[in-house]
Amino acid sequence: MNTADLGLPVDVPSTALFTDQYEFTMLQAALKAGTAERRSVFEVFTRRLPEGRRYGVVAGTGRVLDAVENFRFDAGVLGFLREQHIVDEPTLQWLSRYRFSGDIWGYPEGEVYFPGSPIIRVEGTFAECVLLETVILSILNHDSAIAAAASRMSAAAGGRRLIEMGARRTHELSAVAAARAAYVGGFDSTSDLAAGFRYAIPTVGTSAHAFTLLHDSERGAFQAQVDSLGRGTTLLVDTYDVAEAVRTAVDIAGPELGAVRIDSGDLLLVAHRVRQQLDELGAVDTKIVVTSDLDEYAIASLAAAPVDAYGVGTQLVTGSGHPTCSMVYKLVARARSTDPGAPLEPVAKKSLGGKMSVGGRKWAARRLDAEGIAEAEVVGVGEVPAELAERQLLVELVKGGDVVAREPLDAARARHTAAREGLPMSAIQLSRGEAVIPTEYV
Amino acid sequence: MNTADLGLPVDVPSTALFTDQYEFTMLQAALKAGTAERRSVFEVFTRRLPEGRRYGVVAGTGRVLDAVENFRFDAGVLGFLREQHIVDEPTLQWLSRYRFSGDIWGYPEGEVYFPGSPIIRVEGTFAECVLLETVILSILNHDSAIAAAASRMSAAAGGRRLIEMGARRTHELSAVAAARAAYVGGFDSTSDLAAGFRYAIPTVGTSAHAFTLLHDSERGAFQAQVDSLGRGTTLLVDTYDVAEAVRTAVDIAGPELGAVRIDSGDLLLVAHRVRQQLDELGAVDTKIVVTSDLDEYAIASLAAAPVDAYGVGTQLVTGSGHPTCSMVYKLVARARSTDPGAPLEPVAKKSLGGKMSVGGRKWAARRLDAEGIAEAEVVGVGEVPAELAERQLLVELVKGGDVVAREPLDAARARHTAAREGLPMSAIQLSRGEAVIPTEYV
Repeated sequence: MNTADLGLPVDVPSTALFTDQYEFTMLQAALKAGTAERRSVFEVFTRRLPEGRRYGVVAGTGRVLDAVENFRFDAGVLGFLREQHIVDEPTLQWLSRYRFSGDIWGYPEGEVYFPGSPIIRVEGTFAECVLLETVILSILNHDSAIAAAASRMSAAAGGRRLIEMGARRTHELSAVAAARAAYVGGFDSTSDLAAGFRYAIPTVGTSAHAFTLLHDSERGAFQAQVDSLGRGTTLLVDTYDVAEAVRTAVDIAGPELGAVRIDSGDLLLVAHRVRQQLDELGAVDTKIVVTSDLDEYAIASLAAAPVDAYGVGTQLVTGSGHPTCSMVYKLVARARSTDPGAPLEPVAKKSLGGKMSVGGRKWAARRLDAEGIAEAEVVGVGEVPAELAERQLLVELVKGGDVVAREPLDAARARHTAAREGLPMSAIQLSRGEAVIPTEYV
Repeated sequence: MNTADLGLPVDVPSTALFTDQYEFTMLQAALKAGTAERRSVFEVFTRRLPEGRRYGVVAGTGRVLDAVENFRFDAGVLGFLREQHIVDEPTLQWLSRYRFSGDIWGYPEGEVYFPGSPIIRVEGTFAECVLLETVILSILNHDSAIAAAASRMSAAAGGRRLIEMGARRTHELSAVAAARAAYVGGFDSTSDLAAGFRYAIPTVGTSAHAFTLLHDSERGAFQAQVDSLGRGTTLLVDTYDVAEAVRTAVDIAGPELGAVRIDSGDLLLVAHRVRQQLDELGAVDTKIVVTSDLDEYAIASLAAAPVDAYGVGTQLVTGSGHPTCSMVYKLVARARSTDPGAPLEPVAKKSLGGKMSVGGRKWAARRLDAEGIAEAEVVGVGEVPAELAERQLLVELVKGGDVVAREPLDAARARHTAAREGLPMSAIQLSRGEAVIPTEYV
């Protein structure tokens, strides 16, 4: 992982303005009322999975830790808040000293989640916790949506290689986070160099139709590519006639040709024809990469086709129909005074209209059946039942303001594979359904 | 607009890695083949609008200009490309001197577009143009998707105020771009402070349910908020019982109470009740703000309700069902030699499978009917017919590498309003349909 500050925006020096204005005005009002320092617990959870989905995937936790650590107010940010009269002087003074000093527990990155799972639990004074709402939700809602789509696609791909190539279909920095989340969800590589730079995700890519069209003939383009990138390169064979292109490709590169890429047409049909042609030409080790508006259903439909790798763009970076999660950040408990020893009291919104929440500081555990397969997400307040003590899901992420749970991205990726394998088989069915295990409140 | 470099990632110092790897490998192969310096024309266009949509909205153009200007390779980026063996030494040498020196024309920001509209036209050497593909598409595909949703919502709101508050539902930097695009599409303000900081978009926000729950009573919370933020503030009235909250709110703030916000329940019903209650309490000037999973349809359905402002989150920043556009960046013409005087020849992909494109360097104009209303998007290669000369859509954005078309965001916003008003009335129908005017190729 490249953490050097090279002036690139992917290396975030401050996250303090990724904040909705109301967090600052609430802070100001609470400071004046003397309630800002009441000990408080906020939790991130979702009331429902996206329609039809069987499980969610926690992604972005590592980015949340970076964001919390970098949540600082320098002179420029404070000057903006002052000029725009967003908060008053006492609040600006308070902000100038801001550094999160509380505790954060949460589901580790790559873990699966269900409705009601307390994905992140932030504990500290109201003032220090309330400011983190927007940036934590932005990261988790985006990254988890991409990881969930990636997980479905990787299940559908059944071990074949998956390349993330959606940078052009989403905001240029979402793209970097999307490549990261896709990797957590099971993708193998990305076309996005900023993601390779920032997160050391393997990068791939060779050529587009423009390269063929630049040259006077397809043969000239293929020759130029092989001359420069070697016989192991991937040649794009669908600019003109696919069969002709495959013939030319093997003629130039020989059986050592790395791969051919097909980016249009009936992929099932074309892949079969191309495989047969490659084999007849002796290029039995040349791989076939397909890339054309793929989603998890298209990937599954190509299971019987002679395809070696899938490149996925639009549908991956837009969450395959669900570009965001519905995670919220809610105050679930707070002390009645600013005395640090004052007990926490559960709180919850009571109004009608489907936005109820459950008060109290929560634990969560996944109960397994006799075969060791998950059978329920158990969420509770208070003591953890002894039989679930070893199955608890929340881990300590930040302790007294210090990040204590940094890990390589590969750890999150491996955790996701293991977590998904621990679910009932029906979790990876692509058909629409309910959450694959129920959430039980105890 | 705040352009000071305060170390915030929203102020992008280099955009050179927001690039798919294949752009670099194509560059390397073309440099070796001697074709890299062939004069080339790339165009951004879309083959179709999102299903059911009547028009598209160009947004992000200003960000594209920033990205092109900042597309530079410093030692850190070059070191990464070298270490990862992404390109060879001659290519790294070439990149170290990179500065786009060509010309860019395009639809001005806020303009509407249709299938085939040449939204951006980039002209220069193949080498300098090919590298810009991903970053240009990322920006336009994201920002235009948000602006299109914003435009539909602003048409549905019929002059009532619209607040963008979706930061928590999308990547933290997408959020900043989304607030900007929403403003172009007709929104009035944003909750996102980074967007206020970077683009001087008006920011708003007062309090969340957590603020009420922090305090020992709703009355205590309202009193604290009014004490700190004044009687003109907006009180959130749906934490417990709405009618009780409205009574308490007016009791504390008096008829000078700025607004009440309703964030749950049957908004149509609740808004009517709250308006009646406010009027009976004498708070006839107190506004009603509604915020709860709104989209353009929900906004339209509240047209007859006594609502003064809409806060829109999820559905705005996810493009209301269409989180990305399908814009592509295609080589449409190139010279057959590197002689700067060599004529441009049209090129186009010929393979079957629905990804056809039209070769040649294009102009576009919008033909009007006798009433001055748009009746066709006319796209052509070669001479512009005299009767359309005054209706051309592309303007010069970059000349010889220098940005020549920077403008305030308000100019793009005003342009969008005017462009939408120039379309047939059916453009702003929310029902699904075809593009409101046809694209004619001449």
